[in-house]
Amino acid sequence: MVSWNQVTVVGVGLIGGSLGLALKERGLTRAVVGIGHRETSLAAARRAGAADRTTLDVAEGVRGSDLVVLATPVGLFRSLLEQAAPALEPGAVVIDVGSTKARVVAECEALMPDGRVFLGCHPIAGSEQRGVSFARADLFDGATCVVTPTDRTPEDVLSRVHAMWQAVGMTVRTVSPGEHDRLLAEVSHLPHVAASVLVAAISDAAETLVGPGWADTTRVASGDARLWRDILVSNTSEVARALAGAAGRLDAFRRALERGDAERVEALLAEAKARRDRLTQEKGPR
Amino acid sequence: MVSWNQVTVVGVGLIGGSLGLALKERGLTRAVVGIGHRETSLAAARRAGAADRTTLDVAEGVRGSDLVVLATPVGLFRSLLEQAAPALEPGAVVIDVGSTKARVVAECEALMPDGRVFLGCHPIAGSEQRGVSFARADLFDGATCVVTPTDRTPEDVLSRVHAMWQAVGMTVRTVSPGEHDRLLAEVSHLPHVAASVLVAAISDAAETLVGPGWADTTRVASGDARLWRDILVSNTSEVARALAGAAGRLDAFRRALERGDAERVEALLAEAKARRDRLTQEKGPR
Repeated sequence: MVSWNQVTVVGVGLIGGSLGLALKERGLTRAVVGIGHRETSLAAARRAGAADRTTLDVAEGVRGSDLVVLATPVGLFRSLLEQAAPALEPGAVVIDVGSTKARVVAECEALMPDGRVFLGCHPIAGSEQRGVSFARADLFDGATCVVTPTDRTPEDVLSRVHAMWQAVGMTVRTVSPGEHDRLLAEVSHLPHVAASVLVAAISDAAETLVGPGWADTTRVASGDARLWRDILVSNTSEVARALAGAAGRLDAFRRALERGDAERVEALLAEAKARRDRLTQEKGPR
Repeated sequence: MVSWNQVTVVGVGLIGGSLGLALKERGLTRAVVGIGHRETSLAAARRAGAADRTTLDVAEGVRGSDLVVLATPVGLFRSLLEQAAPALEPGAVVIDVGSTKARVVAECEALMPDGRVFLGCHPIAGSEQRGVSFARADLFDGATCVVTPTDRTPEDVLSRVHAMWQAVGMTVRTVSPGEHDRLLAEVSHLPHVAASVLVAAISDAAETLVGPGWADTTRVASGDARLWRDILVSNTSEVARALAGAAGRLDAFRRALERGDAERVEALLAEAKARRDRLTQEKGPR
C-alpha cells in the first residue's frame, strides 16, 4: 500500500525525521526528500535514514512530491511556502505539524496556488526533545493527531491525510482550526504558563525545599523558551482566555479558603482528583 | 549511640512506621511503642517491625518514653495531647511530623505540662502513599526535614531532635513555624491548588487530548482530598497569599501576551526555565 509517490519533509528534526522514518518503514511512500537550511543537519537526516535525498533548495525539494510536510517552526511557513509555491505539483497536498492552527491555517491556505491544498495537522507527540538524532519510526504510536480541515479542504485530501496518520499509529481527531487552538490552550498552553508561574512564585528561601511534587508540577517549564513563546504568541486570544479563567479559579479557591469553607475546599480537590484519576487511568493515588 | 531510651509513635502509618523502622535499624532507641486506634493496624505495625509493642491507650503508650512522635493527621493532636499529658515523663520531648506548623506549634506548646517540651518537625518525605505497609527505614534518606523551634524550645532539645533527623539521613533546616508555613505554601500548597485548578480548567472536549505534559503538571492533584483539605485549611493565610500572588502573575503574563509583548513573554519563560533547571539540576530540556 503506497499512499504517496514522493513526500517532501521541510525541517527534518524530531517530528519531521520521525515521520520520514515511519512513512518509509511502513511503505507509505516511494521516497522521502528532506529540505533544511544547513547541510550538516541534512547529512544527519540522511544518515538516520529519515530522508532518501536532501536539498537546501525549497523549490527543487518539493518538485515531484504529492505530499509536502512543513515541520519547521511555524514562523518560517510563510517564507517557505512563497519559495515552494511555483514548484508545487498540481494536486499536491501541503500539511504542517505545528502546535497552533487558526492563524497558520488561514495564512497557509491563502498562499496555496490553485489546485494545491493546505491541511493543518498537529501530531501531539515528542515535543520535548529536538533534532533528528532523537527521531524514531514509532514516535507517533498510540498518540493523538489533531487534523483541522476548513470548508476549502476537499474530502479526498482529508481522507488520505487521515489515513496516513492512522497508518503511523495515531488516533486522529478532526476539529476546526479555532477549536484546536481553544482545546490546546486548555491542555497544553495554560499548563505551560502555570508551570512557569509556579517556578517564579517561590522565594529564594524556599529553593532548597522543592521536592518531587514541585518538580513534577513545573516540569514543562523547562521547555525551550523561544519555541514556547512562538506557540503562545500565535494563540494569544485562546491562551489569554484560559489564563483569565485559571486566575478566576485560583481566586474562587482562595475565597473558599478565606471564608473557612472546608467543605467547598474538599469538594474542589475531590472533583479534580476524580477527574484526573479517570483521565490518566491510574490505579493508585499518584 | 542510643539517642532515646524509648520512643512512642502515635499513628504508625507511612511516616510514623518508617521512623520506627529507621530508629530501630540505626540503634537510635532501645524500644519503639506504637499507638493507634485500631488493633488491626497496630498488628500490621508489629508485623512490619515498626513497633516493638503497641497499645490503643494513649496514656499507657507514652509512659516511660523520652520521645513521643505525633504522626496522625494534625486534627487529632489536641485530643491526643490531652490524653497523653498526665502520663508524659518529666523531660519528655514531643514532636510532630505534620505538614503545617504555625497553628499546630502554638496549640501543642500550650498543651505541654511543665518540664515537657513540644518541638514542631516536618520531614518532607513520602507523602503520596499511605499506611504502614509502605513504611521503610530509608524513607527519609536524602530528604529535608524542617524543624521549627520557638523561644520556648530549649537548646539541648533542639540539638537532640536535629541530630535524630540527621541520623536517619535527612538534611535539617531550622526556621520559625510561621516561616515554615510561608515557604511550604510556595513550594507545595500553591502547586497543589494550581494542579487542581488545571484539571478543572479543561473542557470535556479537551479530555482526550491530555498528554504526558498535562499528566506531569497535574500529578499532585491526585493526592488524597481530605488530607489536602486539612493541610490547606490549617495554613489559610499563607496559602491565600500565595494564591493571590499566582493569580496576579497569571494576569501579568496574560497582559504581556495581549499587548503582543513577545519579548516579555520569552523573558518570563526563559527566567522560569533557567531557575527550574538550576533547582532540579537537570541537564536536558526536561
